[in-house]
Amino acid sequence: MKDLLWKNIQTVKQQSPLIHNITNYVVMNNTANALLATGASPIMAHAHPEMVDMMNICQALVINIGTLDEYWVTSMKKAISQANQLQKPWVLDPVGAGATPYRDKVLAELVALKPTIIRGNASEIMALAKNNTSSTKGVDSSAESNEAVASAKFLAEKFQATVCISGATDIIINQKREIHLSNGHPLMAKITGMGCTATAIIAAFSAVIEDKLEATVSAMALLGVVGQLAAAESKGPGSLQINILDKLHSITEAEFISTLKITE
Amino acid sequence: MKDLLWKNIQTVKQQSPLIHNITNYVVMNNTANALLATGASPIMAHAHPEMVDMMNICQALVINIGTLDEYWVTSMKKAISQANQLQKPWVLDPVGAGATPYRDKVLAELVALKPTIIRGNASEIMALAKNNTSSTKGVDSSAESNEAVASAKFLAEKFQATVCISGATDIIINQKREIHLSNGHPLMAKITGMGCTATAIIAAFSAVIEDKLEATVSAMALLGVVGQLAAAESKGPGSLQINILDKLHSITEAEFISTLKITE
Amino acid sequence: MKDLLWKNIQTVKQQSPLIHNITNYVVMNNTANALLATGASPIMAHAHPEMVDMMNICQALVINIGTLDEYWVTSMKKAISQANQLQKPWVLDPVGAGATPYRDKVLAELVALKPTIIRGNASEIMALAKNNTSSTKGVDSSAESNEAVASAKFLAEKFQATVCISGATDIIINQKREIHLSNGHPLMAKITGMGCTATAIIAAFSAVIEDKLEATVSAMALLGVVGQLAAAESKGPGSLQINILDKLHSITEAEFISTLKITE
Repeated sequence: MKDLLWKNIQTVKQQSPLIHNITNYVVMNNTANALLATGASPIMAHAHPEMVDMMNICQALVINIGTLDEYWVTSMKKAISQANQLQKPWVLDPVGAGATPYRDKVLAELVALKPTIIRGNASEIMALAKNNTSSTKGVDSSAESNEAVASAKFLAEKFQATVCISGATDIIINQKREIHLSNGHPLMAKITGMGCTATAIIAAFSAVIEDKLEATVSAMALLGVVGQLAAAESKGPGSLQINILDKLHSITEAEFISTLKITE
Repeated sequence: MKDLLWKNIQTVKQQSPLIHNITNYVVMNNTANALLATGASPIMAHAHPEMVDMMNICQALVINIGTLDEYWVTSMKKAISQANQLQKPWVLDPVGAGATPYRDKVLAELVALKPTIIRGNASEIMALAKNNTSSTKGVDSSAESNEAVASAKFLAEKFQATVCISGATDIIINQKREIHLSNGHPLMAKITGMGCTATAIIAAFSAVIEDKLEATVSAMALLGVVGQLAAAESKGPGSLQINILDKLHSITEAEFISTLKITE
Repeated sequence: MKDLLWKNIQTVKQQSPLIHNITNYVVMNNTANALLATGASPIMAHAHPEMVDMMNICQALVINIGTLDEYWVTSMKKAISQANQLQKPWVLDPVGAGATPYRDKVLAELVALKPTIIRGNASEIMALAKNNTSSTKGVDSSAESNEAVASAKFLAEKFQATVCISGATDIIINQKREIHLSNGHPLMAKITGMGCTATAIIAAFSAVIEDKLEATVSAMALLGVVGQLAAAESKGPGSLQINILDKLHSITEAEFISTLKITE
């Protein structure tokens, strides 16, 4: 499995897929730099008249609702519709799911368009699942970590999506498999937009890897290992952000294979 | 006083207040990272349908007009109205006050909503005061630095606000007290958005410290000391930006107490 | 020539021109920091009611269509109109020219307003030229690099503009002269917005240097040399971005003169 994941990392660098990002203002610069350092090519655009054309030339799409508003939600729907038409993968990042009724209303509309992959933290994945459960039972669970897994399974089933819960342990789930990754570092939570970066890198892998669970695992494995290695050289969250970009660009096979912790 | 300020810095880290930022595109990433490094939690959002709900879950609000437009000004007013309703503090950053009539018109409307705290550089504070003086005399003063203090006192009086003039010396004023801080480093002026970062950190402190002058002094003391310590390790404005984030996260009590220069 | 270019670099630092940037969300922070490190002063604004007033107080204008939409295109036209009225220079960065019909339509409208300077990569300059050729012949050329030069000459002639093709070799052309710069480093292509930074620095030089070809050459020479020197100290694209800002601020005459490779 580790060799396969490393091969996928090389595939992204070789094919350099063009990724269309409709994402939030806070992370655009970092997201673009992370895609470049991974070997992909970023496009950030949102004008209604060019959403279909942009999707035609890109291989995958990121939908991140962090700083959504009415105009941008329409941009998202136009791009998603064309991605679905062309059967190109798109990844939903439900930033702040559950924070406001508006966010939940928009998310319900977006998730109904069937994202190929969904990535969020435990709280976002649980909110997204609750938001899409009509029964009052919801997705019950005794423990919170279990509840996130139950929520992810529910979403994977209902929308035929691959779902990634990112956190201290990243959990990637589809209707058949569940894979756990235990890399990363607590300091990564002190940088804004690490999750958004993860989502964009997942999109890059989904553009060139047929199996979307494998694509998601490859992306999260890369970022987790890179973050862990970069944290070991960092004095704080500022230098960590820089070191992650450097390491995404320079990571070797030996570093990746020896650091990665994966279980299925 | 120094011990009290350090205690406040710990309070922010322990309580990790959620801060709603309606701020400019240029600084969003840095502002979010600075809030995280200080121990607070940032939210950046501006969609009209969620402004009230966002304010309900946040403990303080940043209003920064740097890249304002008609939509965003309405977002600001919606969030401010709810903050006032709930008696939650909000901090006004009058970026570019005096640069254009549009900016001054919007600022007159915002300041009339009674910000808890106002932070700007000397030029902005003077422009804001002139903009709110109906008499033709305005806020006269012989020397420019004195004029900024006179302007700050005028604003503090008229709007019952705490006012911070940031610069080589930071001056924090309310209707009763005036405190001077003499930390920082000239290279900080070569990084975009240091003032915006200051405003956001003030909001974080205002969320958890009852006395708003004390909250503002704590925030400015932290950033000034951190900037000074970070500059000593930096080769230029690029590395200074990174080192400030690292030092905000790692500063020790001994570093803070021994470096801080404060007079009342 | 090298001495003249260094003198121009000092002129920007001494006069610190105010540059109005209507640019894309992805690069705003870096662009502002690069202008500050070069010695200029950035303004980023786009509200329709203040476009004329902003242009009145600024010495040059950047128009970058990276994340354009309908509102921002109107902002651009308002600012350009006032710049032309006041005979202040403006620089067009045709990001993504040729990517979508909408982008090409907007670019045709903007270029017709006669930018003082146009900067793009080879692909963008070629797309912009094709987009403005009514004959079916277009701008023919056997080899691609030659085609970019032919396109630049066509644009320089048709719009009386200085045109800069940036790449491994930067080529700066007007109706009379053609200058080549061979500095920089391949890693610069792995940072988002290096081209946008180049455009903004060109605007800063165009604000204080009368000859616009000389201004463009000075700006590109500075950034190429700085990038090359910074790359030698960098571990990857993350640290390169930071080191470029540091070096823009601290570069010495000896470093500049000994590193610069220029031919006419």
